[in-house]
Amino acid sequence: MKLNVWKDVEEIREKSPLIHNITNFVVMNNTANALLSLGASPVMAHAIEEVADMASIASALVINIGTLSEHWIEAMKIAIQTAGLRKIPIIIDPVGAGATKYRTDTVKDLFAITNPSVIRGNASEIMALIDTSIQTKGVDSSQSSDSALIAAQTLAKEYKCIVVVSGVTDIITDGEKNIFIENGDLMMPKVTGLGCTATALTGAFCAINHNYFEACANAMAVMGICGQLAVKISKGPASLQMNFLDKLFTLTQNEVESNLKYHE
Amino acid sequence: MKLNVWKDVEEIREKSPLIHNITNFVVMNNTANALLSLGASPVMAHAIEEVADMASIASALVINIGTLSEHWIEAMKIAIQTAGLRKIPIIIDPVGAGATKYRTDTVKDLFAITNPSVIRGNASEIMALIDTSIQTKGVDSSQSSDSALIAAQTLAKEYKCIVVVSGVTDIITDGEKNIFIENGDLMMPKVTGLGCTATALTGAFCAINHNYFEACANAMAVMGICGQLAVKISKGPASLQMNFLDKLFTLTQNEVESNLKYHE
Amino acid sequence: MKLNVWKDVEEIREKSPLIHNITNFVVMNNTANALLSLGASPVMAHAIEEVADMASIASALVINIGTLSEHWIEAMKIAIQTAGLRKIPIIIDPVGAGATKYRTDTVKDLFAITNPSVIRGNASEIMALIDTSIQTKGVDSSQSSDSALIAAQTLAKEYKCIVVVSGVTDIITDGEKNIFIENGDLMMPKVTGLGCTATALTGAFCAINHNYFEACANAMAVMGICGQLAVKISKGPASLQMNFLDKLFTLTQNEVESNLKYHE
Repeated sequence: MKLNVWKDVEEIREKSPLIHNITNFVVMNNTANALLSLGASPVMAHAIEEVADMASIASALVINIGTLSEHWIEAMKIAIQTAGLRKIPIIIDPVGAGATKYRTDTVKDLFAITNPSVIRGNASEIMALIDTSIQTKGVDSSQSSDSALIAAQTLAKEYKCIVVVSGVTDIITDGEKNIFIENGDLMMPKVTGLGCTATALTGAFCAINHNYFEACANAMAVMGICGQLAVKISKGPASLQMNFLDKLFTLTQNEVESNLKYHE
Repeated sequence: MKLNVWKDVEEIREKSPLIHNITNFVVMNNTANALLSLGASPVMAHAIEEVADMASIASALVINIGTLSEHWIEAMKIAIQTAGLRKIPIIIDPVGAGATKYRTDTVKDLFAITNPSVIRGNASEIMALIDTSIQTKGVDSSQSSDSALIAAQTLAKEYKCIVVVSGVTDIITDGEKNIFIENGDLMMPKVTGLGCTATALTGAFCAINHNYFEACANAMAVMGICGQLAVKISKGPASLQMNFLDKLFTLTQNEVESNLKYHE
Repeated sequence: MKLNVWKDVEEIREKSPLIHNITNFVVMNNTANALLSLGASPVMAHAIEEVADMASIASALVINIGTLSEHWIEAMKIAIQTAGLRKIPIIIDPVGAGATKYRTDTVKDLFAITNPSVIRGNASEIMALIDTSIQTKGVDSSQSSDSALIAAQTLAKEYKCIVVVSGVTDIITDGEKNIFIENGDLMMPKVTGLGCTATALTGAFCAINHNYFEACANAMAVMGICGQLAVKISKGPASLQMNFLDKLFTLTQNEVESNLKYHE
C-alpha cells in the first residue's frame, strides 16, 4: 500500500474543513493552532445548548476526554449523536483511560452511542480499554506501542473502526491490515498535548479523505515529519512546540516525500 | 482626525489598568500575556460568587463568548451589571455569533442588560447580529470586512456604542463617523485568538482613554502594527504569536508612527 | 545551610513523579509543559468523580485557585482529603487571595481540611491571608516581598507548613528559619502564570524530597536560574516563556551551581 500524504494536505489547505472539537483545557490553544496551521478551520464548543448545532455544520467531530466533567460528557454524547446521524467522522481520544475508572467508563459510554470512526491514544490508554488491569500513569503511557498492537486490533474489530496508537512507532490498524509510521522524535512526548494534536489533525484528514485508514496514516505521517523537522531547529520542548506549528504551516511536498518512513 | 496612538500606549504602561476578562478557554493564556506585554494588569475570573467584586476593582470589563456555557453566561450578566453601574468600559466579543443560535441569542441577551461600550468581531459575527441569515463558519469569518460596514454602523447606532470589525482593513465606527486601519498582515488569522487579543487590548485602551472611538482605533492600530512587524521575523503562525507578544512589550513611538496607516 | 539543588533535579528526572494538578485555565498548558520539561509527569484532573482516584496514584497534589468556581472547589476538597490521608505533599497557590472575598475565604476553607505542606504566593496574596485589609490587584501583587516576611512566618506557624513568597527576592520560611533566593529577573512577572509554574514545580520537588523546606528552596532556585538564563536570550515575555521551558529541559549542574545565589 502506497501512502499519498501530500494529496490530503493539499485538499485540507484548499477546502479548509470545519473541525468541531470538544477537548481538554490544557491543549485547546495548541489544538486550534495546529488545525489552523494545517489549513483547517477549528471550532471549540461544549455547551449542551449548542453542540448539536455546531456538529451540524462541521466536517468532523473530535472528542478528547483530557479534562473531563459531567456537563462536558453530556455535551460529548449529544455531539456524537448528531455526528453519527450526519455520518461525519468521529475521532475519540481516550486521554488518561486506565488512570481512573471514571475515564475508562466514560470512553466506553461514548463508544456505546455510535461506533467511532477513529480511536487514537497512547499504548497504555489503548490497552486499558481492552484490559482493565493496565494502569496508565496519569496521561502518560506506561507501555510501549509494540505491546499495544494486539489490543489495538481487538479494539478496532470490536468497534469496526480505525485504531491509532502513537509511540516511537505509530500503529494504524483496522483490525486486519496494519500500517506502521516510523517518523517522529523522542522529544515529542515532552511537549504536552502533541498526542491531542495528532487526534485533532486526524479529524481534519478524515474530513476530506473518507478512507479513514489512509487518512489516519497520513495524519500520523504529517505529525511525525513535522515533529522531526522541528526538533532539528529546537533547543527544547517549548521551541519544538513552536517550530512544529510553523512547520505544519510551511510543509512542502518535498519535505513530506523525502522524510516519509513507513511499512506494513 | 489625527490618531495619537502613542499617548495611549504610554498611559497604559504607566497606569497598568486592571482589566477583568471573562473569556474563552482557548485564548486565556495569550490574552493575559498580551495585556501584560502591553503594560496592563489582566485578571480572569468567572465565578458567580466573585465577578461583581472583581468588576468592582477593575478599570474595564472584557466579555468574550468563545467557549460558552450556562454558568458563564450568568457570571457575564452579573459582571456587566456591576460594570454598567460603575460606568467602566464594557467590551464584548461575540465570538462565533452566527455559527449557532445559542451564541447569537446570548450576545443579544448581554446587550439587553446595558449598552456595551464596544463590540468587536469579525465580519460574519457583526453581520450575523443584524441579519440572522448570515452563517459564520465556526469562529472564522465567511464575509469580508468591506461588506460589514453597513451592519457595523447599524449595530453602533442601535446600541449607541463603538463597533470594531477586524479584517484586512479594520473598521471602527460609532454609526456616524468611521475610521479604517490598514495595518496588519494576512498571516494573523492563522493564529488562533488574535481577534480575542484585539478585544482584550481594546479594553486596556478604553480603560485609560474615555473617548472610546479613539481608544478603539488606537488599539487596532497597535494590533496591526505589532502584527506586521512580528510577521517580518516569523517563520509561521506560532513564531508570529510569540513575536507579536514580544513586540507589544518592546514597541516604540517610532515604530508606531512610521508604520501607522489609516484613513477616514 | 547548604542547598543541594542539583541532587533534587536529578532525582526528578530519574523518577518522573506523577503530579496531580487542579489548577486554573490560564496556565494549564504552561504548567504541564514546565513539569514535563523538568522531568516530572503532570496530570490535570478536576472532576469530582475522579479526583480521589487521581490523587491516589500521584506523588504530589498541587492546588491553584486562579480561576475558581463551585464544582472545582468541591473537587479540590476531595483531592486534599485523599492527599492528606496518603501523606503526599499538598501545595496550595492562593492566586488572587485579597482580590475578592471569595478567593480569600476559599483558601481558608481548603486549609481547614488538612494543613497544606506548602503555600506559595506573591506578597499581596500571602499578606491578605493574614490581614484582610490587604487588597490584591487582581492576581498581581501590590506589595513587595520584603514586607511579606512577617506575614509568611505567621502563616507558616499557623498551618505548620512552609510558606514561599515569590518576588524580586524569594522568601522560603517554616516560621522559624528562612532562606532567601536572589535569582530571577524583573521580566518574569510579565509572563502570565510563572508564579503558578513555581507552585507546580514545587510539587515535583516535594514529591522527591521530603524535607519540604529544602525542596521549596530548590524549586525556587531552579525557577530563578532558568528565568535569568532565559532572559539573556529573549526579546520579550513570550520568548522568555519559551526559553524558560527549554532551559528547564536542558539545565545542567554547572548552570545551577555557577548561578545559584541565596542567603539565610
